[in-house]
Amino acid sequence: MTIIIAGTVRVPPENAQALVPHMERQLAASRAEDGCITYSYGFDVEDPGLIRVFEVWRDQAAVDAHFKAPHMPVWRAAGAELGVFDRRLSLYEVASERAL
Amino acid sequence: MTIIIAGTVRVPPENAQALVPHMERQLAASRAEDGCITYSYGFDVEDPGLIRVFEVWRDQAAVDAHFKAPHMPVWRAAGAELGVFDRRLSLYEVASERAL
Repeated sequence: MTIIIAGTVRVPPENAQALVPHMERQLAASRAEDGCITYSYGFDVEDPGLIRVFEVWRDQAAVDAHFKAPHMPVWRAAGAELGVFDRRLSLYEVASERAL
Repeated sequence: MTIIIAGTVRVPPENAQALVPHMERQLAASRAEDGCITYSYGFDVEDPGLIRVFEVWRDQAAVDAHFKAPHMPVWRAAGAELGVFDRRLSLYEVASERAL
């Protein structure tokens, strides 16, 4: 069953640009994982300290492997150093998908 | 059944900032609709011309009403004027949700 992970994290706005190269490494490493369909970060259009996360995974096993991937602690350490906070993510099991 | 609408649209990067006030009006009007749980736009962290859309709706009826809302043609006209293109959105039916 396809899995969506979506939500937000916050970064102090003055650190947002410093976080970008770390996000780029995390994006590239995650997109290279087996079962990763989409992995993305966006800066909210109204709030530059609000990062919008959207991921699509083939199944729960791919998500489980992702959270054990060696690049995850590297990303989390970079986030901690730059003050990333207020992580609000949900995991959705997808019953159906169609193009709009 | 909860519905997620997610994906991307593109805008010529030189028009991205001009689109923001239109996005803000669309965000406010959509968030005020019955059954709207989340409505958001983000600028991709690597590609300023790529707008990431993420919406959560209570059910299909709320989505149906949204697409008939009077603010929709206003938003689409603004997007057309500013060259919004390459709309790639999917609709997902959600089987389950949990906080991560």
